[in-house]
Amino acid sequence: MAGLFTSLRDDASLWMDHLSWLDYERRVQAPDATVLLPVGALEQHGPHLPLGTDAMLATAVAADVARRTGALVAPPISYGYKSQIKCGGGQHFCGTTSVDAATLAGQVRDAVREFARHGLRRLAIVNGHYENQWFLIEGIDLGLRDVRLLHPQHDLQVMRLEYWDFLTPQTLAAVFPQGFPGFALEHAAVIETSLMLHYHPDAVRLDLIPDDPPADFPPYDMFPPRPAWVPPSGVLSSARAASAEKGRLLAEEVAQRLAEAVRSGFAR
Amino acid sequence: MAGLFTSLRDDASLWMDHLSWLDYERRVQAPDATVLLPVGALEQHGPHLPLGTDAMLATAVAADVARRTGALVAPPISYGYKSQIKCGGGQHFCGTTSVDAATLAGQVRDAVREFARHGLRRLAIVNGHYENQWFLIEGIDLGLRDVRLLHPQHDLQVMRLEYWDFLTPQTLAAVFPQGFPGFALEHAAVIETSLMLHYHPDAVRLDLIPDDPPADFPPYDMFPPRPAWVPPSGVLSSARAASAEKGRLLAEEVAQRLAEAVRSGFAR
Amino acid sequence: MAGLFTSLRDDASLWMDHLSWLDYERRVQAPDATVLLPVGALEQHGPHLPLGTDAMLATAVAADVARRTGALVAPPISYGYKSQIKCGGGQHFCGTTSVDAATLAGQVRDAVREFARHGLRRLAIVNGHYENQWFLIEGIDLGLRDVRLLHPQHDLQVMRLEYWDFLTPQTLAAVFPQGFPGFALEHAAVIETSLMLHYHPDAVRLDLIPDDPPADFPPYDMFPPRPAWVPPSGVLSSARAASAEKGRLLAEEVAQRLAEAVRSGFAR
Amino acid sequence: MAGLFTSLRDDASLWMDHLSWLDYERRVQAPDATVLLPVGALEQHGPHLPLGTDAMLATAVAADVARRTGALVAPPISYGYKSQIKCGGGQHFCGTTSVDAATLAGQVRDAVREFARHGLRRLAIVNGHYENQWFLIEGIDLGLRDVRLLHPQHDLQVMRLEYWDFLTPQTLAAVFPQGFPGFALEHAAVIETSLMLHYHPDAVRLDLIPDDPPADFPPYDMFPPRPAWVPPSGVLSSARAASAEKGRLLAEEVAQRLAEAVRSGFAR
Amino acid sequence: MAGLFTSLRDDASLWMDHLSWLDYERRVQAPDATVLLPVGALEQHGPHLPLGTDAMLATAVAADVARRTGALVAPPISYGYKSQIKCGGGQHFCGTTSVDAATLAGQVRDAVREFARHGLRRLAIVNGHYENQWFLIEGIDLGLRDVRLLHPQHDLQVMRLEYWDFLTPQTLAAVFPQGFPGFALEHAAVIETSLMLHYHPDAVRLDLIPDDPPADFPPYDMFPPRPAWVPPSGVLSSARAASAEKGRLLAEEVAQRLAEAVRSGFAR
Amino acid sequence: MAGLFTSLRDDASLWMDHLSWLDYERRVQAPDATVLLPVGALEQHGPHLPLGTDAMLATAVAADVARRTGALVAPPISYGYKSQIKCGGGQHFCGTTSVDAATLAGQVRDAVREFARHGLRRLAIVNGHYENQWFLIEGIDLGLRDVRLLHPQHDLQVMRLEYWDFLTPQTLAAVFPQGFPGFALEHAAVIETSLMLHYHPDAVRLDLIPDDPPADFPPYDMFPPRPAWVPPSGVLSSARAASAEKGRLLAEEVAQRLAEAVRSGFAR
Repeated sequence: MAGLFTSLRDDASLWMDHLSWLDYERRVQAPDATVLLPVGALEQHGPHLPLGTDAMLATAVAADVARRTGALVAPPISYGYKSQIKCGGGQHFCGTTSVDAATLAGQVRDAVREFARHGLRRLAIVNGHYENQWFLIEGIDLGLRDVRLLHPQHDLQVMRLEYWDFLTPQTLAAVFPQGFPGFALEHAAVIETSLMLHYHPDAVRLDLIPDDPPADFPPYDMFPPRPAWVPPSGVLSSARAASAEKGRLLAEEVAQRLAEAVRSGFAR
Repeated sequence: MAGLFTSLRDDASLWMDHLSWLDYERRVQAPDATVLLPVGALEQHGPHLPLGTDAMLATAVAADVARRTGALVAPPISYGYKSQIKCGGGQHFCGTTSVDAATLAGQVRDAVREFARHGLRRLAIVNGHYENQWFLIEGIDLGLRDVRLLHPQHDLQVMRLEYWDFLTPQTLAAVFPQGFPGFALEHAAVIETSLMLHYHPDAVRLDLIPDDPPADFPPYDMFPPRPAWVPPSGVLSSARAASAEKGRLLAEEVAQRLAEAVRSGFAR
Repeated sequence: MAGLFTSLRDDASLWMDHLSWLDYERRVQAPDATVLLPVGALEQHGPHLPLGTDAMLATAVAADVARRTGALVAPPISYGYKSQIKCGGGQHFCGTTSVDAATLAGQVRDAVREFARHGLRRLAIVNGHYENQWFLIEGIDLGLRDVRLLHPQHDLQVMRLEYWDFLTPQTLAAVFPQGFPGFALEHAAVIETSLMLHYHPDAVRLDLIPDDPPADFPPYDMFPPRPAWVPPSGVLSSARAASAEKGRLLAEEVAQRLAEAVRSGFAR
Repeated sequence: MAGLFTSLRDDASLWMDHLSWLDYERRVQAPDATVLLPVGALEQHGPHLPLGTDAMLATAVAADVARRTGALVAPPISYGYKSQIKCGGGQHFCGTTSVDAATLAGQVRDAVREFARHGLRRLAIVNGHYENQWFLIEGIDLGLRDVRLLHPQHDLQVMRLEYWDFLTPQTLAAVFPQGFPGFALEHAAVIETSLMLHYHPDAVRLDLIPDDPPADFPPYDMFPPRPAWVPPSGVLSSARAASAEKGRLLAEEVAQRLAEAVRSGFAR
Repeated sequence: MAGLFTSLRDDASLWMDHLSWLDYERRVQAPDATVLLPVGALEQHGPHLPLGTDAMLATAVAADVARRTGALVAPPISYGYKSQIKCGGGQHFCGTTSVDAATLAGQVRDAVREFARHGLRRLAIVNGHYENQWFLIEGIDLGLRDVRLLHPQHDLQVMRLEYWDFLTPQTLAAVFPQGFPGFALEHAAVIETSLMLHYHPDAVRLDLIPDDPPADFPPYDMFPPRPAWVPPSGVLSSARAASAEKGRLLAEEVAQRLAEAVRSGFAR
Repeated sequence: MAGLFTSLRDDASLWMDHLSWLDYERRVQAPDATVLLPVGALEQHGPHLPLGTDAMLATAVAADVARRTGALVAPPISYGYKSQIKCGGGQHFCGTTSVDAATLAGQVRDAVREFARHGLRRLAIVNGHYENQWFLIEGIDLGLRDVRLLHPQHDLQVMRLEYWDFLTPQTLAAVFPQGFPGFALEHAAVIETSLMLHYHPDAVRLDLIPDDPPADFPPYDMFPPRPAWVPPSGVLSSARAASAEKGRLLAEEVAQRLAEAVRSGFAR
């Protein structure tokens, strides 16, 4: 598995943490300078995908977008909100390492405040872990409340997104020839496995993809969570149909459409 | 600068986020299983070192220790506590991207609680950013308060350290032939630059090392901080004497002595 | 509009706050005693629906379920999480009165802790405001963390749900003869308006239903939010097709299936 | 007990949550527009009064004032601060469902901030639960600190009150012909019971009024609280002398004098 | 400067902070060992009393009680909750230096947790600042919640009191020959001034006692607070009738009755 | 008990809490008016020093500086951050009474905000407890963030310091004729004991100074802390060489140099 990160990190100018502060300052002064902040999780992804899948995919997607747009990629937030039974398998798995809501929202609030201080006008938060969504929203809202007061001369705009929402029905139809069942059970399943086969093939153990039938959940949550609702493998629907080729297709569309959003979505 | 991370990430079995949860579970069940959690910062390090220096060094040191001890390295906490004039140059630099105390302590508290839930008995937090120290202590204290209540059957021990404290006077004397002036001004200076030359030579711009005289601080802090106390470059004392060879020497000693601490410092 | 609440509040034994503590204590001691906690919002719902729609519907649904199951309805949490452009129109509307994440999660945490102290074993949180969902999850998680420690002899289970998730495709097909476009734009639209016509007809101004075309959102959020993305009325898709009869159909199915969940979803 | 809320909610134009946002916006733009926010509790009130007494009375009083002044009534905050032995009987009673200080203060802070955003200039917080008082103060103080920064163009004034403080010695003398013993033991006693007989007669069980002698407390609190200090019924002094007629007298004076305060207490 | 604390602290054995930890440990092991924790404020007290009056009186009372009971006095919490117009004059005065609710409650919570760790079974919190009351309650409640979990083997009891509540009607009648008008306006007035003349005569400027008539407040609060409601001196009713002799009488009764409470109020 | 505070507080005009608010207001209006805020701890200091040593020394130093500069001394913050094994002996000692990070930072934040409201331009926080340092920094940073928004017309500057950092190598050489071993083990050792002999000789028990060899710590922390690393006395290195004469020398230099810093360190 040597060289795992080689292709990912091939261009130092993408990565904010690899720039000196003077280089970063120069980059940020461009009127359309954009920073992409990947947010992931450390969460079980079945026997065939690594714990860091969400952060690795959010980072890889962000890098692809940065290559196309000249944006910078900030270091990822690697620890995400608590895994839920119905979208990530739940907190009972060993290895899943999660944070409380206040921690994640606080991390984002502080980052938003700091990027505004730098004079950055465009920040895009690229989320790879479904459970993070609303705590990112809270963090951004609180961060911009601070910014409005502390840096009123700045006009930081923050874009927030889950990368999979950029997939078109056409592409999903191509990837799921028997019909796309929706994102609900797509944890460690076809989309994530294909993307990992595309971005980090050495990190995927195709031979260990489990054969469990898709999970079937009632229209409510129960707490304490019910591990029995989830296959013991942690996979919510089969990843058997995953392939690197599908991953390429998915990655290509996400990168292209997200890059377009980064180019056109911010106000001048 | 292709391959920046190649040598660092050469052995997937070091990295917790590259393991599946089942592999991690197996690893954690060993009685002396240890996880190393690097904590860094995104902070100006002069014109010659990248913003991510503290996280990169804490991670590199942790990886070296992991190779020697069989420990795992968790994903780094990449955003650190607010930079202070007298140790990191201060918060007025563009690019420095910091968090409030509650955020950092909360992140550590949550991580400690989660690692205890995994059944891990040995966690070592490897700090690379001086300003983080006391908020790591608070996070660990609050985390273990939770663990005692929520996971009383577990006996997680947490080691906490700054990697440079493992350097012996002998080595410091070798690296500073004219006498070691102490760690106070070692921000973006000889030690960090040498270590970066050792671990990430492509990320160092030797040609840009500034020539400022060492900073001279009064025995107190002033708030709002005084940017005028700090050289405009952000470097607190000259890195001119840095070399990859010194970096190797420093890295070797830190790794060897820290590995010894990891082996012998935890109670059975 | 006299008697607005008459039919709703016709049976005092449904309402926890109308019982004396001794009556409540008796009720709670039954082994399958259940409390339903409605959570709503005070949020614009277009020119034709009242600000309290979400709380009124969550409460009405809870009352219907209580009538069928013998459960009790606790006083609603009437203030919800901040309205988002793409699901509730956003925070720029006059009248929308929202709380921060910590407030809502704290309210739920405290309630969970208290119900456990009462000896209650079954609590169902009936959500009527989409934006609340994840902060309810956080509140329940933190509340049960407290309960595990403070009331270890208790075994409170918490069910959490959005009432509309109990609608079957068959019913949605009946209500939307031209095809159900999904819940995304169902803010102040056909489902909510029909349910209000069923439960609180006097509170609906059919003559004021706006004629705006459905909102069309990009696959990302922008902050500060963009009011221009939302029709000035605050309605995300037309409510013209709403009717009391559809409301009855929707209400009936939600009540029946939610009652079934309350009966069978909790562990013995 | 049908029609419990009929008389209370007879005029939809009183209730903020029954208005559309456009109607509310129109109302709020009047220069003397006032919103009344009732705050109560869910707390034991003896065998003869319901758990929701404090919220029901604060809401009923607010409605009476609104009818006289044209003010609006916002949805009540139904969950109050923890019941104390010497004023509410204490937290050991089943049914009492309370919140921590931070929750209540946070709820009020957020509401104050939101009403200021609406452009409201006059907010009156009508408290019906003694224990809430200081946390309302903290919530208002923090909310106005936010308002001063976030909405400096607004000049929201907040009135805060306990409704019983508007009773004159004359009226108290009439209600207590043998001398008013002070408010200290007036929990579920003559004043609250009389008011409930006036506002919600169906919710009072006169036959269950206990005959305990008045509680007698030392001049200090003890924690953990001492349930033995409180009569098992939860009533701190006898409600036997309560009557609907006294309730009418009390309600009339409170409403009249509070309406006068609302009219004259705010600055132009 | 020898003997700096000698006369103040005439009996070193009263003051916890003057004991070594070993002496303290011995003292605390006695079965009826009691610690008194004074809580005050730094708040305007008119032209004739010092800013520290509340802390000085709470401490002096605690010392008197300690002398009679063998209890220890812990260092005072010197900064109190925000001054309110109607009881302390308000926050607009220069010199008043107050804390937010969370700060005060947190300070008390932490202290309660620590005293329980010491094995102390009896803690009495002696309050000298009216505004502190409810935040002390919250701090004790949260502290004992922690103690129950973290130190379940301990059975710390906490007494909480305002010292003036120990005055009998007889004494108040003696001090106020024309009738005691109640504690409401007793800020920097007869009771506090007399007690200061008794305990700290050098700190009282009798010649500066203002002649303002008593403040007259409506039965509600207004926020932002109305400085015009308060005499410019900050004194809510005249202290002219104060005397050292009255102070002695008041101090004697408080000390004697509070000592009795400390002796008999804790459970064995 | 007349004159209780007289000798301690030999010069009432030093102590902020002994001034009336009008006197304080006058003092604060001077352009170079300075307030010194001592921060200490209640922490074991071996068998020979009292628990309050840190607060007593910070206060005594502040008073010496105030006498030389005309500054005022605010009431000390007497409870400090949790004692650490390697600098204060640790939290396992009876008598050590500490606060969490959020409490201490909150106390400082609130104080900073209040002093700015007073119009004060110069605040110096004089720390006597090593563990407090970073939480003071956080409190000041958050406080000044508030001040910038709430009191933008003010320009409060905050100086922060540990008093021992004002000692020169010359004086340390005089006090430690065999070489100064550094501050690391100076807990309850020569410096603190000498200063206490100078300021509070009656509070020192020379006969109880233990004879333990200096503690020897590894270059890392362990949590839960290891009491076995610390001598049972709590003293980290011997205080045998302490003397009142050394105390005078130390106190003199600290006071003189700190007074100079107070005079010259603030911007005009």
